[in-house]
Amino acid sequence: MWRVTWLLLLATTVWQRGHTTEDENAQSPRHVSVVIVGSTGDLARKYLWQGFFRLYSSQVGKGYTFSFYGGGLSPSEKGTPLLFEILKELKCPPELAAERCALVKEQFLRLSQYIQLKTVEDYEKLSQQIEQQLKQEDMVEAGRLFYLSVPAFAYADVSSKINSTCRPPAEAWFRVVLEKPFGHDFESAQLLAAQLAGFLKEEEMYRIDHYLGKEVVAQILSFRKKNSNFLEPIWNRHHIERIEIVLKETLVCKGRIQFYDQYGVIRDVLQNHLTEVLTLLMMKIPANLSNSEEVLKNKLNVFSFLAPLGRNSVVVGQYQKYTEEVQEELNKTKDYFSRTPTFAGVGIFTDSPQYDGIPIFMTSGKMLDERVGYARILFKNDIFCVQDYSHVSCKPKQIVFHLGHGALDYPAILVSKNLFKPSLVSSVWREVTEHKDISVLGLPLSDYYIQTPVAPKEAYYVLINKVLHGRKDSFISADNLLASWAFWTPLLDSLVQAFPRPYPGGAANGDLLNFQLRGRELAYVNEAVVNVIQQGQDENFQVMQGKFRGAEMVSAWAKELVERLASDLQSIAEEVIQDEGQFHLVLSGGSSPIALFLQLALHHYTFPWHQTHVWLADERCVPTTDAGSNFRTIYEQLLQHVRIPYFNIHPMPVQLNQRLCVEEDGGALLYEKEINQHVNASSFHYVLLGVGQDGHTASLFQDSKLDETGERLVTLTESPVKPHQRMSLTFTAINKARRVGVLVMGKRKHELVTQLSRIKGESAKYPITKAKTIQKLQKVSDSPQSESQTCQPTTAGRGTSWKMKTLRRTWLPLELILRRGR
Amino acid sequence: MWRVTWLLLLATTVWQRGHTTEDENAQSPRHVSVVIVGSTGDLARKYLWQGFFRLYSSQVGKGYTFSFYGGGLSPSEKGTPLLFEILKELKCPPELAAERCALVKEQFLRLSQYIQLKTVEDYEKLSQQIEQQLKQEDMVEAGRLFYLSVPAFAYADVSSKINSTCRPPAEAWFRVVLEKPFGHDFESAQLLAAQLAGFLKEEEMYRIDHYLGKEVVAQILSFRKKNSNFLEPIWNRHHIERIEIVLKETLVCKGRIQFYDQYGVIRDVLQNHLTEVLTLLMMKIPANLSNSEEVLKNKLNVFSFLAPLGRNSVVVGQYQKYTEEVQEELNKTKDYFSRTPTFAGVGIFTDSPQYDGIPIFMTSGKMLDERVGYARILFKNDIFCVQDYSHVSCKPKQIVFHLGHGALDYPAILVSKNLFKPSLVSSVWREVTEHKDISVLGLPLSDYYIQTPVAPKEAYYVLINKVLHGRKDSFISADNLLASWAFWTPLLDSLVQAFPRPYPGGAANGDLLNFQLRGRELAYVNEAVVNVIQQGQDENFQVMQGKFRGAEMVSAWAKELVERLASDLQSIAEEVIQDEGQFHLVLSGGSSPIALFLQLALHHYTFPWHQTHVWLADERCVPTTDAGSNFRTIYEQLLQHVRIPYFNIHPMPVQLNQRLCVEEDGGALLYEKEINQHVNASSFHYVLLGVGQDGHTASLFQDSKLDETGERLVTLTESPVKPHQRMSLTFTAINKARRVGVLVMGKRKHELVTQLSRIKGESAKYPITKAKTIQKLQKVSDSPQSESQTCQPTTAGRGTSWKMKTLRRTWLPLELILRRGR
Repeated sequence: MWRVTWLLLLATTVWQRGHTTEDENAQSPRHVSVVIVGSTGDLARKYLWQGFFRLYSSQVGKGYTFSFYGGGLSPSEKGTPLLFEILKELKCPPELAAERCALVKEQFLRLSQYIQLKTVEDYEKLSQQIEQQLKQEDMVEAGRLFYLSVPAFAYADVSSKINSTCRPPAEAWFRVVLEKPFGHDFESAQLLAAQLAGFLKEEEMYRIDHYLGKEVVAQILSFRKKNSNFLEPIWNRHHIERIEIVLKETLVCKGRIQFYDQYGVIRDVLQNHLTEVLTLLMMKIPANLSNSEEVLKNKLNVFSFLAPLGRNSVVVGQYQKYTEEVQEELNKTKDYFSRTPTFAGVGIFTDSPQYDGIPIFMTSGKMLDERVGYARILFKNDIFCVQDYSHVSCKPKQIVFHLGHGALDYPAILVSKNLFKPSLVSSVWREVTEHKDISVLGLPLSDYYIQTPVAPKEAYYVLINKVLHGRKDSFISADNLLASWAFWTPLLDSLVQAFPRPYPGGAANGDLLNFQLRGRELAYVNEAVVNVIQQGQDENFQVMQGKFRGAEMVSAWAKELVERLASDLQSIAEEVIQDEGQFHLVLSGGSSPIALFLQLALHHYTFPWHQTHVWLADERCVPTTDAGSNFRTIYEQLLQHVRIPYFNIHPMPVQLNQRLCVEEDGGALLYEKEINQHVNASSFHYVLLGVGQDGHTASLFQDSKLDETGERLVTLTESPVKPHQRMSLTFTAINKARRVGVLVMGKRKHELVTQLSRIKGESAKYPITKAKTIQKLQKVSDSPQSESQTCQPTTAGRGTSWKMKTLRRTWLPLELILRRGR
Repeated sequence: MWRVTWLLLLATTVWQRGHTTEDENAQSPRHVSVVIVGSTGDLARKYLWQGFFRLYSSQVGKGYTFSFYGGGLSPSEKGTPLLFEILKELKCPPELAAERCALVKEQFLRLSQYIQLKTVEDYEKLSQQIEQQLKQEDMVEAGRLFYLSVPAFAYADVSSKINSTCRPPAEAWFRVVLEKPFGHDFESAQLLAAQLAGFLKEEEMYRIDHYLGKEVVAQILSFRKKNSNFLEPIWNRHHIERIEIVLKETLVCKGRIQFYDQYGVIRDVLQNHLTEVLTLLMMKIPANLSNSEEVLKNKLNVFSFLAPLGRNSVVVGQYQKYTEEVQEELNKTKDYFSRTPTFAGVGIFTDSPQYDGIPIFMTSGKMLDERVGYARILFKNDIFCVQDYSHVSCKPKQIVFHLGHGALDYPAILVSKNLFKPSLVSSVWREVTEHKDISVLGLPLSDYYIQTPVAPKEAYYVLINKVLHGRKDSFISADNLLASWAFWTPLLDSLVQAFPRPYPGGAANGDLLNFQLRGRELAYVNEAVVNVIQQGQDENFQVMQGKFRGAEMVSAWAKELVERLASDLQSIAEEVIQDEGQFHLVLSGGSSPIALFLQLALHHYTFPWHQTHVWLADERCVPTTDAGSNFRTIYEQLLQHVRIPYFNIHPMPVQLNQRLCVEEDGGALLYEKEINQHVNASSFHYVLLGVGQDGHTASLFQDSKLDETGERLVTLTESPVKPHQRMSLTFTAINKARRVGVLVMGKRKHELVTQLSRIKGESAKYPITKAKTIQKLQKVSDSPQSESQTCQPTTAGRGTSWKMKTLRRTWLPLELILRRGR
């Protein structure tokens, strides 16, 4: 058993040997008690003790004294020799000479002891021991640092015990370091956060992501700031071609399957490490880099402009031996197959004006061909080389944050020489001038300016040091953690049923895992591979075809449906404009049409927006800036991205005289007047409706007095759900339209559609049934060019088979109207 | 002298030898008279006779008989032997066996004769001769083809003579082929077009651009159409990385300086040949490729979406020996220096939603390192290669229309294999499967699908053939010609004073001519070169500094000025929003602020548009869709490109009740009400004004009753120029604003600014002087966060030096306020 005395003396001695100019009249040093809970586990063995040893050796004599407690569930007689084995193996930090190191190490061993931490009583004893020692040696307490190197399920329990027993007096700080995983998805992370918040204050918690301790990662902000005169003009979508954030591993998961199979590569690496790198690259540079609050706030802000991820944002793979490992380590039978991905490639985009359109490829995997980690910013090739194509200016322009390994094999920041000569990020970094004969990401080393830390430090040492100094910006705040989970969880959910592509591992992978953007979606380049596992397991669907409530119906998978609707809309618009010069389109709010809006904005370059007027089917009576405003959605998702003249946009006037939907302000009448002014016979060319689960459409609800509006086109209505007040087109307006489409998407509408299919005619219970699906009769104009073509909508009995120019259509996605076979 | 008889007989014989299945009961063939005016010139010698010979050999027996007249200014006895020399040298077309060719050639010589064409009488004689022959031999006339191979200055004269003497009877066609140059700029081209239109109908004129006869160029549309299933999804800004249209030459201009020095590389190559290639690449594919009208219409449409070119769209160079050649051929002294560029690189962009943002590099030059012509479409690299980086899918994706020469040395269309396998463009093309061991634009030949014509044909032969068959889509219509000149002329004008960078020529050029995009502007990559010629010749300017009419003045070159104004605006906006939450900005119409709008849209990603309201200083009473609408300009150049909420945009209501600016409709009052509703104390945060040459600002003109508006903020006014009716902020509104900036740009405002600088106080003659330049006094709020901060604009005497929060600024560009030194 080691004891905790005369630290100060030796410490000062050690220090003085190295730094003879140090002030010897330093104030009485303050004492720090370090407690590693789980002190003989894997992480502690590999990194933590080494980190604390280096911390101790660097801090000794700098105003702190230390004692180290290695906690564990085992009783002392079992734990002590285990810990001793670990400590014996501690390596000397590079900055210490061997002789001096031996002294420091001896001292460190004396200051460290194993202690059983199982029951509340154990923790109480620990606390008493700390206090006793402080008293005995008359030391001022600086703080207590608890490092929880235990499985996440134990966090709440351990925190609760620490909280109730080990808090120092108010003058001293109290810091608890937590290791990932911080939950499994958004919900569990939120739960864990709430639990922990019951015992620990946010400022007391230091959630570690060891990537933030990697020296290159830790310098990203500093690099961006120091070189902002060069970077600022090019750090945007006009200049950045793509960003790659990559961690390739050669290892397998063997031995870690218990953990790994529940997590997979996205939770293990992407959600935390690579996302941290992403935020450091994209965040606004804080005015003050050492202002933790500002750093964390700016990091958090990145999540607000990341575009949501979905099933098609990702490709996943699994090395072939994984199945075997799972069967073995989880005691499964030979037909058991896990869907946990060991490889993932993700395509991330932003909605930020600065970065919009830049693809961010994030990828990681086990059993790949090499071990390497980097973030690469590749700039657009804006050079035209008339001659001398080998000139450096004709080569790729890029910045590489090289985290380590790979051919280069040391951490470094590389800037291609055709960009600029960067400033050193720190005084303890140096420029590399000797060049190995290798290439990094397509450029020989000699084409880069390279900088690297003079004396590399391990990530854990760096971070432990930051905990000691209370630098919270190098840790994950609760807000950032939840924002990251909120970003990743939908993707993870979408992958639950996905089959990862099997890959052999190593060089044998060849081009099997290479992936490619299609629009903003991702797919493997090599399509030829048949994923054997996937066959015959999932696709027993039947398609309902033909008519639905007497109207033509189109049903398809959501993506295909939206594609067809968009291209039908374009054909109709072109045809109408050919005849009449203008196309009047009515759009609805809600989430279903968003996919359509994006399809139109991103794929229909030739949509005749210039001759199209956009109207609203309904609007919530909320301020126009409210996120719930239908118009705001339509404007932000569609209108802002296309070249539509300002005056062709017709929002509903729900806000007049600085108040919302007041009858006397006459907003409904105003909109009606606007319709009459622009739309021939008030007959819109296309009205796109949705349908709610209660059967409402536009803002026409069950209890609205739907039949009392007479010839009115627009009316104020009441919704059963908030916000209650609405403005809506009436069925009079809807049924005057030339074409009406109803777009229904989402699994939860299955039942509704079944019910609707059983109702004949109208039903007061389901307002959507009042949208006439009777095909209207139109006089087909003799001269298709005639601008004064009149439409004569005549209500006729069902089945009348006059000449019909177009059909009304109901759009239903496959999800709704499919039944599983058998 | 050769004669024109028994053509039919031999012709049929020749034909039958090759094509024994040909219908021998063909209808009586019709006769074509071909007249080459300028028949012994360079072009005729090199290409035209060869083309007509091949035409003859291919058409013989296909329903036409021919006679060929070689016209020239020389008398017959001098011209005849000259022409004979040319014809003797004619080479056999590859499709004719030697023996057969000898026969055909003998016949062609007999059918051809020299004829003097100088006076009207000469032309009359020619016409008589044609008619006489037709009569004698009882031939039906198909048509007359005049090929004007004469300098452009002679076009009008020759056309006039042909028109008055040589027109065939109405049943026969009359076609006149014209060679470039078609003018020197827009104005001269228009003049020439008008002159020619006095003698020839548009459908009679065949303006030749021999690039349209190059087989690869001629197949661009067909290639795009045949492969549209592959191309359609990727032929847009989301997939195309860049387009390069390149013609590199190794020759010098020696011997052609008389012509060349007046034209230069842009007129010689870019305005015509390369622009034709551009339009074929960018135009909408016609539904019917053989519908000339549709093809020409779609081509024309391309010019409507090309963004204007300016001085900074181009880099120019001149090979060093050019000076010497000029001095020699133009008899100039040793200090004479020509500014004619022999090299140009141009960066072209479009405003089309399909192509927006794609840089189109167009470049050509003399004395470069190799001779090669191509158009390259490089697609974006949307692949992420996890492993196996050498896989074809990891390489560049591109389509190359290889016009000829270079390492490949034959005309071909190349599609990189990672794109798709293209269909053959024509049945007389073949796929190339044998591959030379060379690379084309970064890819080895084996990585391409390659197709090439089976039997290459010369461009002139191809085009002459098209004239014979009346295929106008392979020629330049008057509309297209003028559109092209309208596109290029502003650039050419801007280059008049520009000094081309001298280059040594050939391999010695190294990287000297490589150029680079900066935003949408172009610059040489290698900045280090000092352009010796430029020194001390141009830049004797002095900068006026300090105050202008008592207000702070900023003066700078236009670009820098706009940059400063934009970043000042952003600072002001941020500061105001910090204090008050919203920023109210008033913008003006006109052309000066457009550069500012683009600067804001393209470079100020972080401008707080979300909290900014945009108002108008004035508006023309025109429909909102009119090109003259100030709002339309502001919307299209700025607002459409930034993320500003719809309801923060405040156009002036000039159109109410479907009429324009009618006093009773109360538009001005309505706008005033809107201002009062949104703007605290009706005091805008920033009003950006311009100033007209007559001294007006906003729409406040000299004769408007400017002082009668009292406290009104908005009023209707009358402009001395059309459109007369205007709506404008009053000086009351302008002088209430916290800051007013006046942006003045353009050389023509020099004098005005000088005059304004002399006026003390207000002047009825110059309304702008009523915009108070007195610095307003503001109470600086004690709490900068306070939202209710009140502004107390107090009119105070000039020079009072109270605490001022901000100054009013007058923006003046350097162009105006500089004086030449000495």
